[in-house]
Amino acid sequence: MQLGMVGLGRMGANILRRVMRDGHTAVAFDTNADSVATLAGEGAVGANTLQEFVDALEQPRVAWVMIPAGITDKVVQQLADLMDAGDIIINGGNSNYREDVDRSAALSERGIHYLDVGTSGGVWGLERGYCLMIGGADEAVGHCAPLFTSIAPGLGSVERTRGRSGDPTPEEQGWLHCGPSGAGHFVKMVHNGIEYGVMAAYAEGLNVLEHANAGALEQEHSAEITPLDQPQYYQYDLDIAKVTEVWRRGSVVASWLLDLTADALYENPSLEGIAGRVSDSGEGRWTVKAAIDEGVPVPVLSAALFARFSSRGEAVYADKLLSAMRKEFGGHVELPTGE
Amino acid sequence: MQLGMVGLGRMGANILRRVMRDGHTAVAFDTNADSVATLAGEGAVGANTLQEFVDALEQPRVAWVMIPAGITDKVVQQLADLMDAGDIIINGGNSNYREDVDRSAALSERGIHYLDVGTSGGVWGLERGYCLMIGGADEAVGHCAPLFTSIAPGLGSVERTRGRSGDPTPEEQGWLHCGPSGAGHFVKMVHNGIEYGVMAAYAEGLNVLEHANAGALEQEHSAEITPLDQPQYYQYDLDIAKVTEVWRRGSVVASWLLDLTADALYENPSLEGIAGRVSDSGEGRWTVKAAIDEGVPVPVLSAALFARFSSRGEAVYADKLLSAMRKEFGGHVELPTGE
Amino acid sequence: MQLGMVGLGRMGANILRRVMRDGHTAVAFDTNADSVATLAGEGAVGANTLQEFVDALEQPRVAWVMIPAGITDKVVQQLADLMDAGDIIINGGNSNYREDVDRSAALSERGIHYLDVGTSGGVWGLERGYCLMIGGADEAVGHCAPLFTSIAPGLGSVERTRGRSGDPTPEEQGWLHCGPSGAGHFVKMVHNGIEYGVMAAYAEGLNVLEHANAGALEQEHSAEITPLDQPQYYQYDLDIAKVTEVWRRGSVVASWLLDLTADALYENPSLEGIAGRVSDSGEGRWTVKAAIDEGVPVPVLSAALFARFSSRGEAVYADKLLSAMRKEFGGHVELPTGE
Amino acid sequence: MQLGMVGLGRMGANILRRVMRDGHTAVAFDTNADSVATLAGEGAVGANTLQEFVDALEQPRVAWVMIPAGITDKVVQQLADLMDAGDIIINGGNSNYREDVDRSAALSERGIHYLDVGTSGGVWGLERGYCLMIGGADEAVGHCAPLFTSIAPGLGSVERTRGRSGDPTPEEQGWLHCGPSGAGHFVKMVHNGIEYGVMAAYAEGLNVLEHANAGALEQEHSAEITPLDQPQYYQYDLDIAKVTEVWRRGSVVASWLLDLTADALYENPSLEGIAGRVSDSGEGRWTVKAAIDEGVPVPVLSAALFARFSSRGEAVYADKLLSAMRKEFGGHVELPTGE
Repeated sequence: MQLGMVGLGRMGANILRRVMRDGHTAVAFDTNADSVATLAGEGAVGANTLQEFVDALEQPRVAWVMIPAGITDKVVQQLADLMDAGDIIINGGNSNYREDVDRSAALSERGIHYLDVGTSGGVWGLERGYCLMIGGADEAVGHCAPLFTSIAPGLGSVERTRGRSGDPTPEEQGWLHCGPSGAGHFVKMVHNGIEYGVMAAYAEGLNVLEHANAGALEQEHSAEITPLDQPQYYQYDLDIAKVTEVWRRGSVVASWLLDLTADALYENPSLEGIAGRVSDSGEGRWTVKAAIDEGVPVPVLSAALFARFSSRGEAVYADKLLSAMRKEFGGHVELPTGE
Repeated sequence: MQLGMVGLGRMGANILRRVMRDGHTAVAFDTNADSVATLAGEGAVGANTLQEFVDALEQPRVAWVMIPAGITDKVVQQLADLMDAGDIIINGGNSNYREDVDRSAALSERGIHYLDVGTSGGVWGLERGYCLMIGGADEAVGHCAPLFTSIAPGLGSVERTRGRSGDPTPEEQGWLHCGPSGAGHFVKMVHNGIEYGVMAAYAEGLNVLEHANAGALEQEHSAEITPLDQPQYYQYDLDIAKVTEVWRRGSVVASWLLDLTADALYENPSLEGIAGRVSDSGEGRWTVKAAIDEGVPVPVLSAALFARFSSRGEAVYADKLLSAMRKEFGGHVELPTGE
Repeated sequence: MQLGMVGLGRMGANILRRVMRDGHTAVAFDTNADSVATLAGEGAVGANTLQEFVDALEQPRVAWVMIPAGITDKVVQQLADLMDAGDIIINGGNSNYREDVDRSAALSERGIHYLDVGTSGGVWGLERGYCLMIGGADEAVGHCAPLFTSIAPGLGSVERTRGRSGDPTPEEQGWLHCGPSGAGHFVKMVHNGIEYGVMAAYAEGLNVLEHANAGALEQEHSAEITPLDQPQYYQYDLDIAKVTEVWRRGSVVASWLLDLTADALYENPSLEGIAGRVSDSGEGRWTVKAAIDEGVPVPVLSAALFARFSSRGEAVYADKLLSAMRKEFGGHVELPTGE
Repeated sequence: MQLGMVGLGRMGANILRRVMRDGHTAVAFDTNADSVATLAGEGAVGANTLQEFVDALEQPRVAWVMIPAGITDKVVQQLADLMDAGDIIINGGNSNYREDVDRSAALSERGIHYLDVGTSGGVWGLERGYCLMIGGADEAVGHCAPLFTSIAPGLGSVERTRGRSGDPTPEEQGWLHCGPSGAGHFVKMVHNGIEYGVMAAYAEGLNVLEHANAGALEQEHSAEITPLDQPQYYQYDLDIAKVTEVWRRGSVVASWLLDLTADALYENPSLEGIAGRVSDSGEGRWTVKAAIDEGVPVPVLSAALFARFSSRGEAVYADKLLSAMRKEFGGHVELPTGE
């Protein structure tokens, strides 16, 4: 069948490539003409305007939008204005699922189907395939199933879950119809919330290893900061890159994120050039807000999110207040850097 | 009766002053001769050596040791070597309660009583009185009761607890025999653990107020960091000093720490000269460790402790790892400062 | 001057009583005729319909609405429909400040002033006075200042902040014009967020004290749960009610919440009849969401909120998953209750 | 070469089996004669007393102890008393690394080598191999290298880290000499601390998914608990087993723990028979304590640990205090179960 792609950034382009590899045809649009030319050179039909793009698609059209969240709404509207009843718009970007709920309801009044597809895989999706979490009506999902099958990783070399046999289900191939509109991005949102927590668990633990030689470092004693208790037990100069490597095989914490951490540390053991100001792209925040709405406790996921905020200096005012209070009740004066 | 004080820092000196104010006699020792002279000028018997100090005390001697935790053990041993069976040593410093348990057992073999007295009140104790949390044997506590009564705040203007009447109990006067050796410093340890949590609650909340104008500040949009949702609701330029002042009367969060915060912010609204590198002096760490030993969850107290560690830059290695992972899976590059 | 009150629950009634005590006149409305009769018996003008209520007020009318958040919007609209340009509506309930922003904008088109007043003081406000955090336009706040002065606690016996002298400012008397519409409930929201954190700090610390005799209790050893390390240091049978009492005077953690905890424990030391399913009424959730929007870390406030969710059993599914995972990788079987 | 095993539980027996598979010889001892007979039937030399066990080993002897932490110390001492200078004792159980430091120092005075080997792999080690984290002197580690190579997973099908080529290093084969005595169990301790955090991240996120239909469930409104904001966005009835399955391929959160979660949920989607009282076996506690000693913030790892404590009911006293405080200041009464 055929897939149209609006937005030829790394993810959009690679999704199209996976589709073409499997023998589907492709129509490619981007505001950047070079990107269009590149994909056209690989076998896609290139389109330089939205109108050209829509015209090049066979009905019912299937148009995947893969652009920054900030402009998704505008482009989807423009696209919809050019499309017909029965056509399908797929939003694969990192939208807030609430927008999908509203947008889908509005488009359905015009007979246009709308699918929200949370897409995980990052820069590795071309080879690994993309994990797809899909929200929307059964009919439209069913229509696009062959495309999802091509984009998703497939069974691959990952062992099947105990008890599963026979033809692999879609979820075993890496794509899942999660529920009605918004369900795809809801599941993707929580996926990213979990990602924050898992990443922080590794980062904190490795930080404990990195400081395992605290007892060997000279200590300045002061009344302000408590000395290290029993320094004889903190005399380890560990090789963190090797530790992450050894955990990759046979350990309980083996994972793809650990693989990537081992990659990063093997290449750059002292993490030079990285300041540690950690960005967050929305889904972590939305996950915690959703948990609050549901009344579900997420102490780990929220701690991971807040550690990112703190890494960017957003706790400084609070910290100043703490020092100010300590000075008030105890006459404590801050120690200089390196205390 | 009589109290001897070893260590004439602010707290030791002021405790002695409260005792003398109530008509007790005092013996004062410090390695700093000026400190001894000052207290002698106020009516205490000055001692320039430990031997002089012990000789000046009537039997059974009552010697309060108020010195840094790091040298407490040595001085208590020296003192004990000069004392006799039936004498009482009081440790009022911030010791780990486990040391009290061990030390008390050792001294009791020589017939010397040992009391651990957690002492709260900071720089304000001279006027407010000191809150005393005491561990040790009944007999020694009973003997020293008149001294504790003088050092503690007394009933004062604080309203009595509903249902209490008649003669005020010791705990109503601000001192409590908590239990056997170590119990005093155990309770003081938890007191300080709570203090960390309460301080952090204020600091975090006020930080939310400080950022309440986030929507009015210009935002650079980027794909890396999610934009502020609905900036029209974050347009408040609040006066934090006034907010802490208004909460002092009638609100649920009124407290002495809030009073002190209002003091600090009235004097220095922008907290100039404070970097926000928050020290911790041991009890917060011990409280969390005790909670872990007991299997008791302390998510708030530990979060408060860890925020102090982070304020001193101890999360940076972890944060670098997070950025390194993000680069690996998503090609994300850190934003420059001020993102 | 005159104040009209819509909603004669405990808080509404007591606010009216404080106003009348200071010589102002009052108009009282509630759907419960008994409540109206009670206030009428104390000197207020009673009104049995909203129309009667509006008719009884002198222009410019000042109407304070003190009703559950769920019906506030409807009643404010009904009230506004009966009022005239220049009149003032005060919302003293626990609304989300965002509703105030929207509502104020809508009413201002009709010339009606709207003030949002966060009100703290609980069941004790009649005697202690209410701490008032106010959002809205200067003119309307200025007009109502005499009422706020009567409702707030006034300077009272609380010591003035260091450096303050002369006539006490409004914030010293317990009321503050925080900023434009929504600012009052924004500050009140954060006040409650802090309240959650402070309460949790006490509760966790006292829980550590409650378990201080863990070493004295008989331990069943099992391979599944780690035994208590060094039980000799956990042999304290502490009297928690006395501990909270002793901290009330002279300690760093003295506060009104601690006073109330001492009240509760003196009356009911074993907390009989309380299950520990802790409710939350919205502001804690909103505070954490606001912090997330602002990108401000609130690890302590969120931990306090999530502890409440967990207390209501909302972590159970997550806990089951943890046990299920442990069984998968390690063959671990859950211990029975009382492990 | 030859390996002796003391303790033929699942892990001890399977380690021996992996060694024998690779052509090494084995000596097997356990207090349970049946276990000895089983291994003898598979080719090991069976020993029914420690003396027989030591006698059956060639010098320098290599004896691996794989028994519960509580009895490790006693058995190691008994074993050492029967051994000679130059022999090697390997402790593969879950000991606190501090005990290894002390034990190794004591044994080295007698010329006996001691290695601490953190061993991960759980019930799956026989087929997957065991990840080994080793502490001790170079010489002894070098001597045992062939055994470690047999026990560890080897390169297997896991892709090599980017940039690594040539002969695989030990850490690529799943075993690592981390440092001097204690280093092995230190790294294993942190491994388990991370494991707690990763597990909790999944569990919390899946709990958010499980509650995604909160808006569809009927809500009782009360003044005590805030109603769900915008219930139209919480209408998803998600199939959690399918979600964990789809994440196994291509997603950022793919991991072995996720594989196991998918196993568990496929077999038992409603987690029947699991109460959610989550045990902890020591390393999580030690990790947080080590972080505290080092002054390193671990908000995520500690939150994960405390969630386990709470799952076992250890927060109840704290929760009761919170409800008691709310009643004091606001007259709030707890809602019945099911609020």
